[in-house]
Amino acid sequence: MEVIGVFNAGVTRYLDETILLLRVAERPINDNPEVYVVPLYHPSEDRIVLQEIERKPEYDFSDVRVIRTPERNYLTSMSHLRIARSTDGIHFTIESEPTLLPSGPYESYGIEDPRITLIDNIYYITYSAISELGICTSMITTEDFITFTRQGNIFHPDNKDVAIFPASIGGSYYALHRPSCSHYGQPEMWIAESGDLKQWGNHRHLIGVRPGFWDDGRIGASAVPFEIEEGWLEIYHGADKSNRYCIGALLLDKHEPWKVIARSVEPIMEPETDYELEGFFGNVIFPCGALHEEGLAKIYYGASDTSIGYAEVTIEAIRANLGLKQLNNQL
Amino acid sequence: MEVIGVFNAGVTRYLDETILLLRVAERPINDNPEVYVVPLYHPSEDRIVLQEIERKPEYDFSDVRVIRTPERNYLTSMSHLRIARSTDGIHFTIESEPTLLPSGPYESYGIEDPRITLIDNIYYITYSAISELGICTSMITTEDFITFTRQGNIFHPDNKDVAIFPASIGGSYYALHRPSCSHYGQPEMWIAESGDLKQWGNHRHLIGVRPGFWDDGRIGASAVPFEIEEGWLEIYHGADKSNRYCIGALLLDKHEPWKVIARSVEPIMEPETDYELEGFFGNVIFPCGALHEEGLAKIYYGASDTSIGYAEVTIEAIRANLGLKQLNNQL
Repeated sequence: MEVIGVFNAGVTRYLDETILLLRVAERPINDNPEVYVVPLYHPSEDRIVLQEIERKPEYDFSDVRVIRTPERNYLTSMSHLRIARSTDGIHFTIESEPTLLPSGPYESYGIEDPRITLIDNIYYITYSAISELGICTSMITTEDFITFTRQGNIFHPDNKDVAIFPASIGGSYYALHRPSCSHYGQPEMWIAESGDLKQWGNHRHLIGVRPGFWDDGRIGASAVPFEIEEGWLEIYHGADKSNRYCIGALLLDKHEPWKVIARSVEPIMEPETDYELEGFFGNVIFPCGALHEEGLAKIYYGASDTSIGYAEVTIEAIRANLGLKQLNNQL
Repeated sequence: MEVIGVFNAGVTRYLDETILLLRVAERPINDNPEVYVVPLYHPSEDRIVLQEIERKPEYDFSDVRVIRTPERNYLTSMSHLRIARSTDGIHFTIESEPTLLPSGPYESYGIEDPRITLIDNIYYITYSAISELGICTSMITTEDFITFTRQGNIFHPDNKDVAIFPASIGGSYYALHRPSCSHYGQPEMWIAESGDLKQWGNHRHLIGVRPGFWDDGRIGASAVPFEIEEGWLEIYHGADKSNRYCIGALLLDKHEPWKVIARSVEPIMEPETDYELEGFFGNVIFPCGALHEEGLAKIYYGASDTSIGYAEVTIEAIRANLGLKQLNNQL
């Protein structure tokens, strides 16, 4: 296997360190042009098997990330999660071994796109568990980033982009999530409610795609929401119909987070640099986390499914983007 | 509007009556061959609007139940739920008014396919809530079938065929459910866990479609499971790839209902009669409920999305179908 990308990392603070939980994507090294080789985790044997797929004309290889055959679809790479640590938030040391590897029947295609929420000294890590059974969101908890406890699938397939709010609100926990529908719905953002962070209900549609806008194709939560003066600020991702991914902001009511106060008309950030425009899957900036410190949103984002970028934006600039009055005017 | 079918009814006992909660499907009466007319519930105005759809060549009218356009899909009919009552389980009096009508943003295409679970004197009604936002499963509770309380969406889209077990097992409640996946998974049966019947987690895949069998296309829970000597007996539905719906049985472990003990190799019932073979959507038998009484499963099932049939099968016959030893031999 070779690493083809390190991207879409969850981020948090632990003691005096910034922790990134990296998505590391690997694919088999293959010199045979006659076949594709895809990695599959076999839960019954607890090992990764490399499976050859013939280049049949009826198979669809048009998306570099997926091979579509009439029988089933395969991912061309497999991801695991790995910790990187930093004392300044910029220079990171990547651990030499995977932190979390695929395990069990729901992860045979890999684990992806973690988000980390800290509540009462427990870190709740949500991530996409991909298998031939569908795309579930699973949860793992840790208190120290050394010992991890698997908590099972908290959302049934298909669901991804789950970001849990970092505090209970009116006695309930809330999570943003993104179901995919087969029949009528669009890939849009929903909000769910929980008493224990494991069992979720009261699913409500939160925001939809906007025809003609930068986010008219698909949207989902990116960062764990954080609190500002006016409510909960969510840094989310939206793609247009040509799969160009940008970053926007969403402001939710402080006490009733299922109520939308404001939403970016224009993105707060677009793919611009070489590494954002080109890569394994180009024209993509995709955060899985942001830190809210020093009046800034410090955004760690996947660039083109290949690398990780870092951007700082002032909360004031996000306020302006959202059309909110400047705080100075309110005071 | 005209009624085009009464089918897929939930069933339970209340006092000395058998209660059916009927799915009543209606469509607009339309004399204009130039257009289709579909009913849409508008939640903001709380009324049903009849919308004309041109018969454009690029629209797909091949499925009598659905109109597919590039922008969105429509249902050709709209369903509500209505009570019928009987003292003998055979002769029913249908109430003159709808019991539950579409309401709110998740039901603009109608409400369908109720299941009724009795726990501690409360009836938990789960049903499919269909809208342009997707297919959710919602819950309504009642104690008397006069006053009803809406409990919101308990499963996010797409999900249907939810049947809640009628008792807690080892301190948790369980529900069978059927997600639909856009990317990798099949329409198959899952099981979820809950502490309060409203918030659900620990989603696990239970059984899949079986290539070459009568249930190789799609499967889902039908009746609310009931307890027999060997475990929990589920009367489920399975369709083959040509949409022929049959009824099968599934036996789950009494204490660990996520473990499968036995499953019908052959259906326990297949479409045979005229009214099962032909109708609005023919070749379909589809139960949403069964009563377990007098050593019988009394199955109320939708026939061809048009009418409701009734069948009795002995538990002994189901045991034989499942390949279980006859109880007499065990004693």
